[in-house]
Amino acid sequence: VLGQNQYGKAETRVVRVRRDDSVGVHHITDVNVSVALSGDLAATHLTGDNTGVLPTDTMKNTCYVYAKQVGLEPIEAYALALAEHFVTTNPTTDHARVRVEQYAWDRLAPHSFARAGGEVRTTEVTFDGGHPQTVSGLRDLVVMNTTDSEFRGFRKDQYTTLPEADDRILATAVHARWRYGTGGPGHDWSARYAEVRGHLLDAFAGTYSRSLQQTLYAMGERVLTKVPTIDEIRLSLPNRHHFLVDLARFDIENENEVFIAADRPYGLIEATLVRDGAEQLLPVE
Amino acid sequence: VLGQNQYGKAETRVVRVRRDDSVGVHHITDVNVSVALSGDLAATHLTGDNTGVLPTDTMKNTCYVYAKQVGLEPIEAYALALAEHFVTTNPTTDHARVRVEQYAWDRLAPHSFARAGGEVRTTEVTFDGGHPQTVSGLRDLVVMNTTDSEFRGFRKDQYTTLPEADDRILATAVHARWRYGTGGPGHDWSARYAEVRGHLLDAFAGTYSRSLQQTLYAMGERVLTKVPTIDEIRLSLPNRHHFLVDLARFDIENENEVFIAADRPYGLIEATLVRDGAEQLLPVE
Amino acid sequence: VLGQNQYGKAETRVVRVRRDDSVGVHHITDVNVSVALSGDLAATHLTGDNTGVLPTDTMKNTCYVYAKQVGLEPIEAYALALAEHFVTTNPTTDHARVRVEQYAWDRLAPHSFARAGGEVRTTEVTFDGGHPQTVSGLRDLVVMNTTDSEFRGFRKDQYTTLPEADDRILATAVHARWRYGTGGPGHDWSARYAEVRGHLLDAFAGTYSRSLQQTLYAMGERVLTKVPTIDEIRLSLPNRHHFLVDLARFDIENENEVFIAADRPYGLIEATLVRDGAEQLLPVE
Amino acid sequence: VLGQNQYGKAETRVVRVRRDDSVGVHHITDVNVSVALSGDLAATHLTGDNTGVLPTDTMKNTCYVYAKQVGLEPIEAYALALAEHFVTTNPTTDHARVRVEQYAWDRLAPHSFARAGGEVRTTEVTFDGGHPQTVSGLRDLVVMNTTDSEFRGFRKDQYTTLPEADDRILATAVHARWRYGTGGPGHDWSARYAEVRGHLLDAFAGTYSRSLQQTLYAMGERVLTKVPTIDEIRLSLPNRHHFLVDLARFDIENENEVFIAADRPYGLIEATLVRDGAEQLLPVE
Repeated sequence: VLGQNQYGKAETRVVRVRRDDSVGVHHITDVNVSVALSGDLAATHLTGDNTGVLPTDTMKNTCYVYAKQVGLEPIEAYALALAEHFVTTNPTTDHARVRVEQYAWDRLAPHSFARAGGEVRTTEVTFDGGHPQTVSGLRDLVVMNTTDSEFRGFRKDQYTTLPEADDRILATAVHARWRYGTGGPGHDWSARYAEVRGHLLDAFAGTYSRSLQQTLYAMGERVLTKVPTIDEIRLSLPNRHHFLVDLARFDIENENEVFIAADRPYGLIEATLVRDGAEQLLPVE
Repeated sequence: VLGQNQYGKAETRVVRVRRDDSVGVHHITDVNVSVALSGDLAATHLTGDNTGVLPTDTMKNTCYVYAKQVGLEPIEAYALALAEHFVTTNPTTDHARVRVEQYAWDRLAPHSFARAGGEVRTTEVTFDGGHPQTVSGLRDLVVMNTTDSEFRGFRKDQYTTLPEADDRILATAVHARWRYGTGGPGHDWSARYAEVRGHLLDAFAGTYSRSLQQTLYAMGERVLTKVPTIDEIRLSLPNRHHFLVDLARFDIENENEVFIAADRPYGLIEATLVRDGAEQLLPVE
Repeated sequence: VLGQNQYGKAETRVVRVRRDDSVGVHHITDVNVSVALSGDLAATHLTGDNTGVLPTDTMKNTCYVYAKQVGLEPIEAYALALAEHFVTTNPTTDHARVRVEQYAWDRLAPHSFARAGGEVRTTEVTFDGGHPQTVSGLRDLVVMNTTDSEFRGFRKDQYTTLPEADDRILATAVHARWRYGTGGPGHDWSARYAEVRGHLLDAFAGTYSRSLQQTLYAMGERVLTKVPTIDEIRLSLPNRHHFLVDLARFDIENENEVFIAADRPYGLIEATLVRDGAEQLLPVE
Repeated sequence: VLGQNQYGKAETRVVRVRRDDSVGVHHITDVNVSVALSGDLAATHLTGDNTGVLPTDTMKNTCYVYAKQVGLEPIEAYALALAEHFVTTNPTTDHARVRVEQYAWDRLAPHSFARAGGEVRTTEVTFDGGHPQTVSGLRDLVVMNTTDSEFRGFRKDQYTTLPEADDRILATAVHARWRYGTGGPGHDWSARYAEVRGHLLDAFAGTYSRSLQQTLYAMGERVLTKVPTIDEIRLSLPNRHHFLVDLARFDIENENEVFIAADRPYGLIEATLVRDGAEQLLPVE
């Protein structure tokens, strides 16, 4: 039996330049867009009858056209327009999911830019003809506290060798996704994004941490408390371990100064926080 | 409100050598294991009380101990032993998910090996005290048919420019996950793995393809038909486009001989096939 | 016959925290250091006699010790101290090469930081007992001009199909390495780094470009003109092609607004500029 | 002053299908080709005069045309044909360097294939109108010996903490490049490739190793001894450390059975071996 299925074009890389030629100033938006459509596609799976199959190449063309006609900013509006287009114009598409990643650039000059690095802004819009769902987020926001973090009082079993830590480095790469309630964010998606990003950073920096879980919760709670249009947030925080180097072997004191930045393995702490009364809809990976 | 949450140690890389010293022959198993536990962890999130938190460092140690005491092969048995250990010995753990990836090596000599490349074998065992669920799979099995693939008769809209193709290259990197029924595979996980891999390749090579969806369905159907202990399979097939180079511009004929292997964007075809009467439990990504 | 050989420890990841505890402000430096030593090592190659081999594990330990005792900043001074240490204390080491990459972090709070993304600062110090050579640089500085770039009047042969471009996007990821003269930079390596980075960006943004070669030359020339302590600079500039989307097929005008950001293949433009009278010492890759 | 400079098209991905339609059997060759040209290119650097600049887009087209007209196999012949083409037909090109990587595929069926994984075959042909130089090689050939490797008797200084090892895992990812003498390999490049690969594996597996340097030397020496048409070989061997897990903490014996496969840092051992009387021409990275 054919179960859930979807198909689409992934990772179409589009750059849009807006040219304000009266003053000679340009603006750029740089995105990576992935479309997935589902609906009644049994025919192509079972017999190879493609009557209802919109080629993924067409989806790519549509991403380009909408970059021109709707624009790429904010990415939530672009994704929403694409999702609605596919569901409303394509008879065999009941459901569209559009994911967009945006890469930030800093201005160097009126028409010159340097890529900002740092985190990637994301959105995922799903639409099935009713109310669209918008889940925005960010990933690869790498942050570190050099103190005000401890890890003590944990459970020990026969395989536990970790010493308790009074003062450790806490570092992570924030991956956050937040779901807007059906009221939407009042259409000012980019302002909301900046606000959430600020709350995540403030809570990370401002929380005295007894565990990365506690820091995660403080980050999520801050967002839900401060931004009423968000109903749910999921945070995935890899613990980027920084191990204190044992320099005592060389008669050298190392008072939390020199650390090994480790690659693998890493702790991974994940949780969803849901506004009281709201449903948990974000998937677990 | 704290919703779903889990924590664990990700990407612990373990190699196990079995030394059959009577004949001087060694065997190796090379894996990457990731553990995620969940249960009543509200205390650490809300107050930083870590009484119920088993450090992820302990999970790492446990992965090493079990590599010695249970062994790494088959990876399904190793993952199951770990999952049961965490749930049965750790009072705050109700649920464990253990993912293992295995990298293949070819033998060069009695104690010398070369890494095989090719696909990675995977498993994910989840256990909550009842019957464990085992989802095995593979990823990065890159395959190509140089003919017997067409794509015609598809839907056209105003943004469609793709010409119909009578004879094209069909290439993909197979990502498959299959769920074993509660009867299990009779404990011969590695034989089942080899069998499924063979069926996937046979169906890919043997299907005249009118769409990648049709090929996907043929691959999944073959597995469900041939391996009764599997209840469900999900396939995710990126379409690795090979575009025919236009050499006519140079008065050179190119009869499906020279192709551009493109990187991005790519089509992405995904579907789950479920045995009649079974539930669809595999998540959609 | 054994020719050139070297050995060392690569990619030791060290983080140094400086704690100004009187005011509660911390500073961090985050580096990746790779050491390669050479000298008379024939014995270990030919017979496995390791008498003269300093283990690479010892080199790693030394990197940690020097992070504490010398500090990591500026990376040129750290690399120099390590290189001198290995050559002067290890009888079989005639020559040391130390490469350091530094990852930038922005301050969030007195002891909280966010990784900056953007370019990586680099240095390579080589020392053989005489005057050390210092080659500093940066990589992954991604920049884009949205206009003031053309590419015309180029050579055509029978395989040329590229149309001339009056107005195109010019984007690249700057990889630059510059060699300081034996006078050194007056020991203010970080000021020089900031200065060079600024000149590279100014020249990129300020040059009306008829070819990426011309832009490259302008960037290198600016650095040699403005920074007298640099004798030589090598630039490697991948041309990150942005292709204008053909929207005319859909009766839509695209006046340099919507572009495809392509991955592969890419143009690659590389050149060394040498101060008049100086030698070209930087290797070609 | 403008020093060494070059430009070209990097990473053009081409697949060639040869169709033996009489028996319905296909053959594929899958490569990644990078071209770099140099010559008198001062004009474009200094003034943006592109008269002598062959667009890198044309180089890409040429790679496609030659894939059809010369074929991709063996990659040495393809690279040589391209290098000669650019130097002999392009007045401003004095020197061409063509690098090709080849990805192996296994046959599944007459026109179906699975990518082999494992090592990548490489070549670099340089041509300046005289005798071309051919440097072939391989990379990412990952090998492991589970015994017959020790590391003892090494130099100790104040920072040495590494214990001596009587019996350790020796694992590496072989990166080898060998230069053919001007006599060439008798035009049977693929046979020579298979031969060298076999000698490298035999020497790796068959050498009792007192250091990775000794193993490296044995590998290079075997190639130079057995393949008279090769004048020089450079090997770069990252030491993929496998650390024995300390299970004694848990009262469990670990007799070289369970190892941690570490990522970073890693040792890196590099050397060139030159046939007596030949020049060392391979660059040091």
